[in-house]
Amino acid sequence: MSEITGKNYIGFEPSAAGDNRFQTFNPQENAANPWEFVEASEKEIDQAVGMAAAAFPSFKTLPGKRRAEFLRAISDEIEALGDALIQTYMLESGLPEGRAKGERGRTMGQLRAFADLIEEGSWVEAVIDTAQPDRTPVPKPDLRKISVPIGPIAVFGSSNFPLAYSTAGGDTASALAAGCPVVVKSHPMHAATGELVASAIVKAAQRTQMPEGVFSNLNSSGIEVGQQLVKHPEIKGVGFTGSIKAGTALYRLAAQREEPIPVFAEMGSINPVISLPGALAEKGEWWAEQYANSVALGVGQFCTNPGLILGLESEALEAFTQILGKELCAKDPACMLHPKILENYQEGSAQMSGKSGTQLVAEYNGSLPPNTPAARVMRVNGTTFLEEPALQHEVFGPFTLVVACEDEKELITVINSLGGQLTGTLLAAATEINQHPEVVSALQQKVGRLIFNGVPTGVEVCPAMQHGGPFPASTDSRFTAVGTLSIRRWVRPVSYQNWPQDQLPPELQDKNPMGLLRLVNGEATREPI
Amino acid sequence: MSEITGKNYIGFEPSAAGDNRFQTFNPQENAANPWEFVEASEKEIDQAVGMAAAAFPSFKTLPGKRRAEFLRAISDEIEALGDALIQTYMLESGLPEGRAKGERGRTMGQLRAFADLIEEGSWVEAVIDTAQPDRTPVPKPDLRKISVPIGPIAVFGSSNFPLAYSTAGGDTASALAAGCPVVVKSHPMHAATGELVASAIVKAAQRTQMPEGVFSNLNSSGIEVGQQLVKHPEIKGVGFTGSIKAGTALYRLAAQREEPIPVFAEMGSINPVISLPGALAEKGEWWAEQYANSVALGVGQFCTNPGLILGLESEALEAFTQILGKELCAKDPACMLHPKILENYQEGSAQMSGKSGTQLVAEYNGSLPPNTPAARVMRVNGTTFLEEPALQHEVFGPFTLVVACEDEKELITVINSLGGQLTGTLLAAATEINQHPEVVSALQQKVGRLIFNGVPTGVEVCPAMQHGGPFPASTDSRFTAVGTLSIRRWVRPVSYQNWPQDQLPPELQDKNPMGLLRLVNGEATREPI
Repeated sequence: MSEITGKNYIGFEPSAAGDNRFQTFNPQENAANPWEFVEASEKEIDQAVGMAAAAFPSFKTLPGKRRAEFLRAISDEIEALGDALIQTYMLESGLPEGRAKGERGRTMGQLRAFADLIEEGSWVEAVIDTAQPDRTPVPKPDLRKISVPIGPIAVFGSSNFPLAYSTAGGDTASALAAGCPVVVKSHPMHAATGELVASAIVKAAQRTQMPEGVFSNLNSSGIEVGQQLVKHPEIKGVGFTGSIKAGTALYRLAAQREEPIPVFAEMGSINPVISLPGALAEKGEWWAEQYANSVALGVGQFCTNPGLILGLESEALEAFTQILGKELCAKDPACMLHPKILENYQEGSAQMSGKSGTQLVAEYNGSLPPNTPAARVMRVNGTTFLEEPALQHEVFGPFTLVVACEDEKELITVINSLGGQLTGTLLAAATEINQHPEVVSALQQKVGRLIFNGVPTGVEVCPAMQHGGPFPASTDSRFTAVGTLSIRRWVRPVSYQNWPQDQLPPELQDKNPMGLLRLVNGEATREPI
Repeated sequence: MSEITGKNYIGFEPSAAGDNRFQTFNPQENAANPWEFVEASEKEIDQAVGMAAAAFPSFKTLPGKRRAEFLRAISDEIEALGDALIQTYMLESGLPEGRAKGERGRTMGQLRAFADLIEEGSWVEAVIDTAQPDRTPVPKPDLRKISVPIGPIAVFGSSNFPLAYSTAGGDTASALAAGCPVVVKSHPMHAATGELVASAIVKAAQRTQMPEGVFSNLNSSGIEVGQQLVKHPEIKGVGFTGSIKAGTALYRLAAQREEPIPVFAEMGSINPVISLPGALAEKGEWWAEQYANSVALGVGQFCTNPGLILGLESEALEAFTQILGKELCAKDPACMLHPKILENYQEGSAQMSGKSGTQLVAEYNGSLPPNTPAARVMRVNGTTFLEEPALQHEVFGPFTLVVACEDEKELITVINSLGGQLTGTLLAAATEINQHPEVVSALQQKVGRLIFNGVPTGVEVCPAMQHGGPFPASTDSRFTAVGTLSIRRWVRPVSYQNWPQDQLPPELQDKNPMGLLRLVNGEATREPI
């Protein structure tokens, strides 16, 4: 693994001017990994952001086709890292090879999807209203609107997706696609994986002749690097995936700046699942097995993990709960990403157990390798759940809480009491869904994605995906963190009034040289004017 | 004027439970208007928001057609207020009848434009990715995305547009169109105009059988009512038009809430105008006349007022500046909206005069009726402008500052030094614009709307309009405050995964019963699936 230098990338150059050093951790071996990383210094952070700001004017004016080359080159260079990347990923996350390869594929797929999007070009949402010089009392001017990038973006890598939501993940891919330079704050738990991916991005930028400063990668061991980044006057937006506490703190920090900037933080979620009686009567056992799999997936370290299952007090719910517990605890345990994550899991589930009225349904009781959690299913009745807001806290890991409500009214009250969520799932028999319109309406108000008879884990990357929900699922529910429309987080509209044809961006010219879908005088069309 | 009761509307009911009373002011007569208004009490505010939250579930599920009826009824009821509205508007603003009627027309036009938008329905941006059950390694689910309203919105009426950006203005029209109930904080300077318009909205809501709570109107004399509104847990978004200080304070207040909410504040702007030498050589005198008109329009009380004119030191710029001053000061003076606004104007222009290096070019020197400002043109060189950030402050009124830069480099430095702006204008000869790409690039980065050879005053209401720019022009440049796309401020996407056809919103059903333009598997189409 001689590739790992422990250095930052400030623009295209490796740099290690700081004094703070740190290591990553191998949770399988329960030991530090061999490499030493140098945290970015204040000066390096300032340099990286300054270079990003300097690169912005030329990067933003590159045609989509050129930026698409860059994104595809990143995908190629990530692939070219080959097994070194997969091995490093596994050493830093404890996750299995299949997951590593799957996540790499997803990361490359995202980059290519954004390349396709910006090469085609209609994503800029060109809107044209032509002049009416004879209108009375005043002539109507010619107005043409297009999306333009907002400026350098700070991206915070996530702990639980070392590739797909990190250095070259969805935030970076969408920001670069939009024309925004990116400064990544690498996640301290997988700095080596981050460095390898950063090297791929730098190679791709050089190979496709992007301006230096379009990308930098900063090592960090604590919160200081991220805070400095968010406060830097030349940073114009922030992408973040992580905890409610950290994401909200960054959001508030950004709002206190002299120039406030948007922070898109994708944070916690307990992803409520409503199990209606008909679904449990028809195939309660099957659903219990599906949910044991979903809760256990990735050792429960997913933002879409189903942490809350709501139902009506009944024998069917009780039977479902017992099978869920049995099936979940029958699975081979696996280690978590980091001892700290295990510690949080232990604390979180202990807090649940400590609340009066909660009951342990099942707990894994075999021997546990290092950094490995005991999966748990707990239950509580609706009244207790409503009385104790702490039962809504996310327990990040293989844990779920079943809430037995006494009737539909209490079920709706419970749904209304929830914070915002990434997803909400409805398990229902075919004829059952239209009998509970208030349940569906209440659930819709709380979530970004509604799932019918399925599990919330598994986030498809496609235009119709919404990954982001009302606070605290995310800080701005008007945007998605996954899918091609996530590019909208990093752009703002600019209108050109009576601007000369030959000086307009090609996307807005009468002849429509790129053949874009545009809104022209209220009609969507690919025709020239 | 017996119609004016001085009461709030809490839902459909007039209400006056509070203790604080205030009056509006007639700037022409320099005397208080006769009516007494009762400021909303804490309890009334809480009631209004509670009713809005209660109305939300039924209001949001109404078909667009029904909400369109409501918006058109508001327009009709505003028209039915007839001359009483026009007279009240004039008594509270000092603005002339033509302006009052024009603004009423704009307000009604906006309401009808949103009615058309939601009746047609494609604004919800339906995106459909159909299932691929045979995809390996995992099947692709069916995903369908639509925009849904975020919840009750607080709207702050503006001081300078008693109709078009107030009680039933663009913020209210767009939020109601989206399906969000609205609680208006009426502007204290035109509470009577606000009450009349509120009565029209209430009548329209009753006539079209909207749920009570869909609209409330709160009187306020200070900042307390607004602060309580923004902090209320059931308020989910804020629309504001006003000063940088107030808008930024509300933005930060909203970010500090337990659940942060989006605040779209449209604030100050000095709307820089770049006068290139060719334009001044060709028709400098004509431009000076145009700009005298633009600066004087509405007594300079427009957020798009051109407060800053940049040029290169030359005889042509000097001649332009002199004519501008002469023409501006030759106009009949007119009174401002309120003594406080005049006071701010006096203070702001005195601060400009007090800075060393600034020179008075021209000042109206005839006699001035009450509440009437002396129009002023000042000038300064580029170096001084760069040294003194206070010269960027907006002087709200008939004032403009001409900055003579020594060369193009300094001109670009000056542009780069500016805060975000609603508009930026380029005056250039036909062959001149393509000789200054850096000027255009720098200007684009600062503004929401670029204007070629025109004036920034006059904001067309159409889909291609962008009214909103980088901070401090607005708090979130990713959205517009004017035009039909301003509806996007109040919605968030929700995805439905594998949801049964007959339970989907009509907009997402295979058969496309409304004939919407949708993105289906990546292609924009009005066809059914």
